[in-house]
Amino acid sequence: MKRKLAVVLASGGMDSCVTLAEAVAGGLEPALMHVQYGQRTQRRERLAFTHIADHYRVPAERRLVVDISHLAAIGGSSLTDPAEPVADGRLDALGVPRTYVPFRNGNLISIAASWAEVLGAESIWLGVVEEDGSGYPDCRAGFIRAMELALRLGSGGGGELRIETPLIALDKAGIVRRGLELGAPFALTWSCYREEERACGTCDSCLLRLRGFQRSGTTDPIPYR
Amino acid sequence: MKRKLAVVLASGGMDSCVTLAEAVAGGLEPALMHVQYGQRTQRRERLAFTHIADHYRVPAERRLVVDISHLAAIGGSSLTDPAEPVADGRLDALGVPRTYVPFRNGNLISIAASWAEVLGAESIWLGVVEEDGSGYPDCRAGFIRAMELALRLGSGGGGELRIETPLIALDKAGIVRRGLELGAPFALTWSCYREEERACGTCDSCLLRLRGFQRSGTTDPIPYR
Repeated sequence: MKRKLAVVLASGGMDSCVTLAEAVAGGLEPALMHVQYGQRTQRRERLAFTHIADHYRVPAERRLVVDISHLAAIGGSSLTDPAEPVADGRLDALGVPRTYVPFRNGNLISIAASWAEVLGAESIWLGVVEEDGSGYPDCRAGFIRAMELALRLGSGGGGELRIETPLIALDKAGIVRRGLELGAPFALTWSCYREEERACGTCDSCLLRLRGFQRSGTTDPIPYR
Repeated sequence: MKRKLAVVLASGGMDSCVTLAEAVAGGLEPALMHVQYGQRTQRRERLAFTHIADHYRVPAERRLVVDISHLAAIGGSSLTDPAEPVADGRLDALGVPRTYVPFRNGNLISIAASWAEVLGAESIWLGVVEEDGSGYPDCRAGFIRAMELALRLGSGGGGELRIETPLIALDKAGIVRRGLELGAPFALTWSCYREEERACGTCDSCLLRLRGFQRSGTTDPIPYR
């Protein structure tokens, strides 16, 4: 029997890797979308994406790399503005951090919806996490449900498209544990906002990742400085 | 007193030109966003955009041209696929036409939302028309309201962003009449899906435009073949 298609957003990071592992475990055939938006570590993230896609034997016609570097031109984020350094993380900081790219997930979901409609995919999978302390407004469940409604009302495919966010209520330790159960290839993933050879270990993204592995009682397999 | 900023999507066509005229008449300062997505007539549409922006004296820092030709790579539309000709229009045709770009307005609104947040704009203006017979699902009022909710829940700007669609309930004749009242520069606009020198007069877009001018009892000022 032919497997149903799912568009999975794969950044190269650990959250989207576990999300992909969930879609595969659910019997779906993944189509992987990777987005470059002029972020500092985009070469390294794309390499991680390729390694993960190879691991899951995703054929070339089910991989889509999209350049949305117009978001860099629009500005507003330290991830895309070369003049603004990425600050060391502070997990207790309040409000929207400077690494926020305005309405990034709205843009990503919209592109995924265009592709899903052409492919005839039934769902879009995102590794967003509401409770990871990063404070991004476009990772909240309410936003995801509103976008899903917009997809159903605004797409031509018959209005059946779902958005799946299996990690949304987990913390990083929970994601590590779930990824280990599913055999997600953490060694192939990349999370650091700042470096491309060995992870810095001190940016927001590294701090969250390291704490997740620590709290789950396991060791992160990637190299740190 | 400083005028409030509005991001207006300006395709170079007559509907978005009248929408811009409405925003200006409402006392707002327009920031114009123009999108290229690999469509056949993109050079001509961009020229019309520039003429309209000049007409309204919009400064360079309030003009944004975005390339989303990844939508062409995704395919699914005769507007972006060079192998598929644009068919002659039939205004009585049912269903979603082949000139549909999957979830195009979802993509456009998402980019506009990113820019609006950076600019501090209070609203996004779109020239969508529900009743123009074109059958695009992402021109319906329900879709627009769902996207507005997604913007409020998913953006970092405080959740005040509105989506304004002043033409949504009008027909083409009504748009022509309203544009004439507002002094919209119809002679600078371009609507044809097929040609760049003189409009073809036979594609969907030309047929709708010509019928609108005819029913409003006026003459379209642009040249036809």
